[in-house]
Amino acid sequence: MTENTTNTTGVAILGSTGSIGCNSLRVIESLTASEMRVVALAAGTNVERLADQIAAHLPEVVSVDTETAAHDLRALLFARNVDLPRIVIGEAGLIEVATHPQADCVISATVGAVGFVPTLKALERGKRVALANKETLVMAGELMTEAARKSGAELLPVDSEHNALHQCLRGERHEEVRRIILTASGGPFRTRNKDEMKLASVAEAMQHPTWSMGAKITIDSATLMNKGLEVIEAHWLFGFAPEAIDILVHPESVVHSMIEMVDGSVIAQMGVTDMRHAIQYALTYPERHSCQLPPLDLTSVSGLHFEAPDLDRFPCIALAYRALRAGGTLPAAMNAANEEAVSAFLNERICLTEIPEVIETVMNGHSNKSAKDIQTILEADHQARGAAIAAIEKLANAIV
Amino acid sequence: MTENTTNTTGVAILGSTGSIGCNSLRVIESLTASEMRVVALAAGTNVERLADQIAAHLPEVVSVDTETAAHDLRALLFARNVDLPRIVIGEAGLIEVATHPQADCVISATVGAVGFVPTLKALERGKRVALANKETLVMAGELMTEAARKSGAELLPVDSEHNALHQCLRGERHEEVRRIILTASGGPFRTRNKDEMKLASVAEAMQHPTWSMGAKITIDSATLMNKGLEVIEAHWLFGFAPEAIDILVHPESVVHSMIEMVDGSVIAQMGVTDMRHAIQYALTYPERHSCQLPPLDLTSVSGLHFEAPDLDRFPCIALAYRALRAGGTLPAAMNAANEEAVSAFLNERICLTEIPEVIETVMNGHSNKSAKDIQTILEADHQARGAAIAAIEKLANAIV
Repeated sequence: MTENTTNTTGVAILGSTGSIGCNSLRVIESLTASEMRVVALAAGTNVERLADQIAAHLPEVVSVDTETAAHDLRALLFARNVDLPRIVIGEAGLIEVATHPQADCVISATVGAVGFVPTLKALERGKRVALANKETLVMAGELMTEAARKSGAELLPVDSEHNALHQCLRGERHEEVRRIILTASGGPFRTRNKDEMKLASVAEAMQHPTWSMGAKITIDSATLMNKGLEVIEAHWLFGFAPEAIDILVHPESVVHSMIEMVDGSVIAQMGVTDMRHAIQYALTYPERHSCQLPPLDLTSVSGLHFEAPDLDRFPCIALAYRALRAGGTLPAAMNAANEEAVSAFLNERICLTEIPEVIETVMNGHSNKSAKDIQTILEADHQARGAAIAAIEKLANAIV
Repeated sequence: MTENTTNTTGVAILGSTGSIGCNSLRVIESLTASEMRVVALAAGTNVERLADQIAAHLPEVVSVDTETAAHDLRALLFARNVDLPRIVIGEAGLIEVATHPQADCVISATVGAVGFVPTLKALERGKRVALANKETLVMAGELMTEAARKSGAELLPVDSEHNALHQCLRGERHEEVRRIILTASGGPFRTRNKDEMKLASVAEAMQHPTWSMGAKITIDSATLMNKGLEVIEAHWLFGFAPEAIDILVHPESVVHSMIEMVDGSVIAQMGVTDMRHAIQYALTYPERHSCQLPPLDLTSVSGLHFEAPDLDRFPCIALAYRALRAGGTLPAAMNAANEEAVSAFLNERICLTEIPEVIETVMNGHSNKSAKDIQTILEADHQARGAAIAAIEKLANAIV
């Protein structure tokens, strides 16, 4: 067993075979070997990619979703003559990865609500959490930030917008910030009308103009629910009131976000659209380490443009502000309904513009409670999924 | 005599009737009455405006350029029934204003080399200097920064670009900055060819696209020597090597400047083109006070564009980098030659494209010395002015 006697930072990754997970491993590989060591990985069912990652990084523990995946992984590693790590399964496995004693930093990059409990456990143990899973904060922002406060854990955003805000806020006083401004690419339907959006295919919705990401977040970017979730995330990460959090559409995604100070000064963070920058920042903070990626070349950009978001064509934004203002379990219910609706859209059961309809139906029917414990939040999530599935059935049957 | 027993900041202004001086007074008026008090003002010969300022702010000491101006000022104040402040004259007067015992902060906003010695004296007394007079740092950056270091004085830039850099650098480590990037509007000749620039009238050169400023700096902006001076100013203010200071043309002047970190992240400061923002920042730093000016509205900007500066059409940039790299008295000689050449252009004695010719002639003939004391620097300034006038004569006669 390796003992962490050096200055090496032990890293655990939840969601290692996803987009953020793979990029995280590339960042760790690009840093000096002594700086970071991968001690634990959690993936879902993509055992081929996970086997490659295990062979490259030799973690002590890996987690997969199912017994079948664990079996397949063992066979793959055996065939490749790779020493078997300890293999754990399901949510208990995710928690074991998230709380690994040698993990100083946990990259929380699972998609959706599944990362919630493991990430909370990591924060309770005082580990730095590099958070790419915004759903976690949307569901349980108060619990998460309270856990971090109690244990002294650092919660660092990997989302490019929040990572940008974190950078802009360095050296500034909270009370001297007038508002924070999340930029949004506007997604593939920025210039389309409502009818075109209604008829949009999954393939069209997956054409994100500037970022290459996983399926769920790409659809969230097409409906702008991604920005709505980010508003809630920003509230919990940085402590600003809903009315001090704004959204500005910026199709080029060069300005990743900005803050406006009480004296009128605007501080913006810019960069290329490569998640490795935000991941590296979260891993090395408060230091900045050299990065060999091509720097931003503003002379090659044809121009930076900004416009107000269209709240009529993108009703998810208002739904998110409503959930944030209401508080309690409503954000968790909204998030659960969104996950189900996006899944139904990806399975071609509802159309794109029905995603906000499903969410609104669920929110209207939700009986809001104080989100003081995990159980209450998970129940709200569960109930909302049931309500969402019912609403989806109704819409899907109406189409047929 | 007022005693400074409250928390009020005493302010002295060198160049109170100029563009920055007038804006400084507007900023002071906009802040809560108890925050700032004008204790001393220095102007040149615009006694009408100075009399208004005296009536409004009741400073204890004012300085003007000449005995005649002092006489006229006395008459004006007498006629308006305003109590006479102590009136002082010339460079000794400027120094008295700059070193006024109740001045906690000195706004150095005279045009050109005249502000050099008074500003140095203010720094030696440990006063905060809000510096709008970039020529001062170009001439004697080492002396000025050394004086500030010894006395513990703060040197805060009012130039919008350097003020922006100061804001971007808050909370960042010097060694983690890869480069600083000064933005330039590109001036009125950004899209003109060399022949058009040669024939440019004074009126055309005075048409600055984004900023309303005094005559000298407006011509410097047309030749881009202003940006060259700013490169040298940035070197002394922030301690970056010439190769870590870049210029980017940005016609809209919304991004006031930016920094690129070693990890590739770019931090930019944006704002409306109103000098009052930078002045207020320099006066209230490290606090930011509320400002009632209209905030930046990025949705009303048609786009932000960036291009590399054209070193062929704007040879002043290379001259400034050459002076900075050479060090010693060469920057002071370059600055003096530029002042004379701009003056000759404004008097229609030489054409715009002859400004860099005059400067280059003077620089080529300059015998460079270590810039360790005021006397050596002032001699270099004096000699360079003589050489510049000779070069101007030659060109002016060639035209006739």
